[in-house]
Amino acid sequence: MDKADAAATLAAEILEHIPLTRAMQIAISRYTGDELEMTAPLAPNINDKGCAFGGSMTALLTLAGWGLIELGMRAAGLECDIYVGDTQVRYNAPVWGALRGVARFAEAGALAPLVASVRTRGKGHVDVACEIVGEAGAAATLSARFFARLHAPA
Amino acid sequence: MDKADAAATLAAEILEHIPLTRAMQIAISRYTGDELEMTAPLAPNINDKGCAFGGSMTALLTLAGWGLIELGMRAAGLECDIYVGDTQVRYNAPVWGALRGVARFAEAGALAPLVASVRTRGKGHVDVACEIVGEAGAAATLSARFFARLHAPA
Repeated sequence: MDKADAAATLAAEILEHIPLTRAMQIAISRYTGDELEMTAPLAPNINDKGCAFGGSMTALLTLAGWGLIELGMRAAGLECDIYVGDTQVRYNAPVWGALRGVARFAEAGALAPLVASVRTRGKGHVDVACEIVGEAGAAATLSARFFARLHAPA
Repeated sequence: MDKADAAATLAAEILEHIPLTRAMQIAISRYTGDELEMTAPLAPNINDKGCAFGGSMTALLTLAGWGLIELGMRAAGLECDIYVGDTQVRYNAPVWGALRGVARFAEAGALAPLVASVRTRGKGHVDVACEIVGEAGAAATLSARFFARLHAPA
């Protein structure tokens, strides 16, 4: 399966199994292996001030980070549970339009050692850096550690 | 207006103006002045693993912290914009039932100096500590700095 098909499959699964993502109308707009971009329109994610709700921004960024790792593990043929750990969020500027969030590994090339750790130890962790793209730099950033644990054999 | 009425008014405003909170089905279940408790059922906030979606937990906790300050400023007769700044989230345990989030001031009695700062300087900030109540301690914690800015006179 190529990267675009894998991302489309994951997006469909997310929308099916996480009802809030349907309410947010999220989509995966780009996936390169090193980056995953997730988008959502403003209207369902608006707040009382007419800009994007902070809760929508953190949910979208957390999900983008999770998706980046999930797709990386699938590409390596590994079925894992991926879960989020300690997270830092910084809000820099309000967002008055559609949300566009990009997730990257905090260190370039971090997927390969994670895959190796899961193969040898059945688990591993990796740090992800995500941002909401703003008009002048990041409107919000989210740094999070994610943990992967190999599914037990059936 | 007593505290329960003030909280009910704010909950209605949140649900009216922030569509994602309707999707989450949030409610303010308790407000004492020092603590605000916000709840949401599991079904609209579930993830692919059958437990609560992390994005729902952070959104609920951020909103609970915001509400705690908003209600405190209203009680002091101050109309402010309240917005969230740097935030740290820690996920300790999955939540398999309804979400119950409690927001408190990080330092007891922090509302009075915030009110004084807004009265004299037109702005101020305060740190809030929130948690998702779990079966054994906090299932997740969120620490955030919030900023208040007095509305400009019309």
